[in-house]
Amino acid sequence: MPFSALSHLDCPKCGLTYSPDQVIGLCSCGSPLLARYDVQAIMLTKDELATRPPDLWRYHELLPVRSPENVVTLGEGMTPLLPLPRYGHELGVERLLMKDEGLIPTGTFKARGAAVGVSRAYEVGVRKIAMPTNGNAGSAWAAYAARAGMEALIAMPIAAPEICRREVKVVGAELHLIDGLIGDAGAFIRAELEKRDGYLDVSTLKEPYRIEGKKTMGLEIAEQLGWQLPDVILYPTGGGVGIIGIWKALVELRELGWIDGPLPRLVAVQSSGCAPIVRAWEKGLPESEPWPDAQTVAFGITVPKALGDFLVLQAIAETDGCAVAVDDEDLLAEQHKVAQLEGSFICPEGAANFAAVRQLRESGWIHADEQVVALNTGAGLKYPETVPL
Amino acid sequence: MPFSALSHLDCPKCGLTYSPDQVIGLCSCGSPLLARYDVQAIMLTKDELATRPPDLWRYHELLPVRSPENVVTLGEGMTPLLPLPRYGHELGVERLLMKDEGLIPTGTFKARGAAVGVSRAYEVGVRKIAMPTNGNAGSAWAAYAARAGMEALIAMPIAAPEICRREVKVVGAELHLIDGLIGDAGAFIRAELEKRDGYLDVSTLKEPYRIEGKKTMGLEIAEQLGWQLPDVILYPTGGGVGIIGIWKALVELRELGWIDGPLPRLVAVQSSGCAPIVRAWEKGLPESEPWPDAQTVAFGITVPKALGDFLVLQAIAETDGCAVAVDDEDLLAEQHKVAQLEGSFICPEGAANFAAVRQLRESGWIHADEQVVALNTGAGLKYPETVPL
Repeated sequence: MPFSALSHLDCPKCGLTYSPDQVIGLCSCGSPLLARYDVQAIMLTKDELATRPPDLWRYHELLPVRSPENVVTLGEGMTPLLPLPRYGHELGVERLLMKDEGLIPTGTFKARGAAVGVSRAYEVGVRKIAMPTNGNAGSAWAAYAARAGMEALIAMPIAAPEICRREVKVVGAELHLIDGLIGDAGAFIRAELEKRDGYLDVSTLKEPYRIEGKKTMGLEIAEQLGWQLPDVILYPTGGGVGIIGIWKALVELRELGWIDGPLPRLVAVQSSGCAPIVRAWEKGLPESEPWPDAQTVAFGITVPKALGDFLVLQAIAETDGCAVAVDDEDLLAEQHKVAQLEGSFICPEGAANFAAVRQLRESGWIHADEQVVALNTGAGLKYPETVPL
Repeated sequence: MPFSALSHLDCPKCGLTYSPDQVIGLCSCGSPLLARYDVQAIMLTKDELATRPPDLWRYHELLPVRSPENVVTLGEGMTPLLPLPRYGHELGVERLLMKDEGLIPTGTFKARGAAVGVSRAYEVGVRKIAMPTNGNAGSAWAAYAARAGMEALIAMPIAAPEICRREVKVVGAELHLIDGLIGDAGAFIRAELEKRDGYLDVSTLKEPYRIEGKKTMGLEIAEQLGWQLPDVILYPTGGGVGIIGIWKALVELRELGWIDGPLPRLVAVQSSGCAPIVRAWEKGLPESEPWPDAQTVAFGITVPKALGDFLVLQAIAETDGCAVAVDDEDLLAEQHKVAQLEGSFICPEGAANFAAVRQLRESGWIHADEQVVALNTGAGLKYPETVPL
């Protein structure tokens, strides 16, 4: 049984397929590519899985790295899935759970995409990576690049959390601060890569494997709930890779025969200061339009136009989910309530989910007896300024 | 089989024993008390253990909480044990491993003691806790107190890391900043508790269960290495509960019959700006003397005189270990080397261990072929100022 069941890459837009064992970015049509597996060939049992070490590599058959020697790991994955009984009671959702992605290297869920993305890039021969970032992805990819002995070129908006700047510097990556938003950082990276050789552009969804790391959140939720899925999963949505990844994971588990029944309703949560996907969903559009003057305290989800927006909208539609925008003041209030009632200091992006749970419970979209999983995408430790002294 | 095999408490100094099912602090002789277990009655097998969820409660038979309903958890434990091949090669210690306690609630190993200490305090009826802290213990105990619905009174030196102040505030604990060191914060707490009712003083080793949480680091290291112990374990030592706990864990595992042979040589690492245990060890004394003008960038280990110093010295002596002091500039240099070679942003206290590994390898005390485990006690994220911008 091979370490990975990876078979090919395909394009969710035009349907073209590619061999995965090469350095590759987007499809020739401009769409992101998705990794596909020979799921029927996987012989793993749930009992065997249960004895494996508690990190995301326990799912290696459904990950793209072909050889264990190429795994670049800092011990990421199998983050806690915590009941929030007292806070859930306040929201009127007694079966509320939080998947806490603060307990992961570099303090955010971005470590999952970086671990798998860097490992697979290394495996196909890449030794230099480049990316624009809102901060946390840069921290993560720079750390894993250092662990792999690779060079990293990172560009982030000057308004990104300061801690991310320090994380990128401490591991020795090349950092450029951009006076603008993530799109401007992307333009900087593209211009640099025209002048430089040997770099792989690992921007969100521009290479096929970051999403494979992110999907392990979905695999873990299913395993942690004993392969019984929750009713609703909420995700704070910027680039949207997390929500696409969770959807992809659940579809693969269904194909494997480990889960059945309807998938959880997936909810894309955005800030009302930058809600292109919410607007597209409300209008019934297949893609989003660029959001002007994007601004929110939940800086990680300040993405005016995501490359994978059409996949996010498809994930929502096919699971009977929805898209919700929340105000900054509401999400900050929920961040403090979670801390005081449950002891967990979460990030503003994660807190956006709870503002959405409150909204969706009040509107009746979430029922009182439903099991609801909210992803906290990072540690509050990275956002000290959200707590006044 | 009961959830916990806890049988009694005993005093390592005068030998008195106590029933554990009461609110209790120190022995009447002034010494810390240690929890003891009916180890022979434990029927757990290694195979059964391997299928339990990956948190420290997997070892519940060897923990003091008698009923699972009293467990107060944020998902702590089973932190990664990472090989550091490139950095180990540079140090001349090819089999170097790091136990990374950054991946835990509140970002430091203090969460272990708080989880078990708060759970057990809750179980015996405590609803208010109070403690002095260098910062990270206060963050952790305040968080778990909030999770349990308990009140927390915290006093910390004004020079403690600012992030800890914010962590204590966000969970709604009562915080007092003290113009002095941890001893002065302790005096403040003692004075307050003379005026207030109902608080348990949970200062280091003044209640018996924090050490039980800390010992799970030792249990995990043994399990993660397949029950084959390493040659050396290094610990950055302030109050010393971590190193005492690891020692206690290994002795209990030997009693259980799960490990045999000599224990790892335990190394207490201190900063040369505050090295009372190193001085006592060099002089062959059974206890330390208070260190005057204590000061180090590794603020967490600024403890001029630890209540459990005699136990630390005993742990070192009985395992053929040693105590080592390292300079601030050396530990900061190692912090950056670990980040650049391995991608991991560790805390200054954890970095002190690596300065000690370098020193002990150069002196020949650590051999080139030995397996060495260094504890990184917290996330570098909590020490942003250690990375210049």
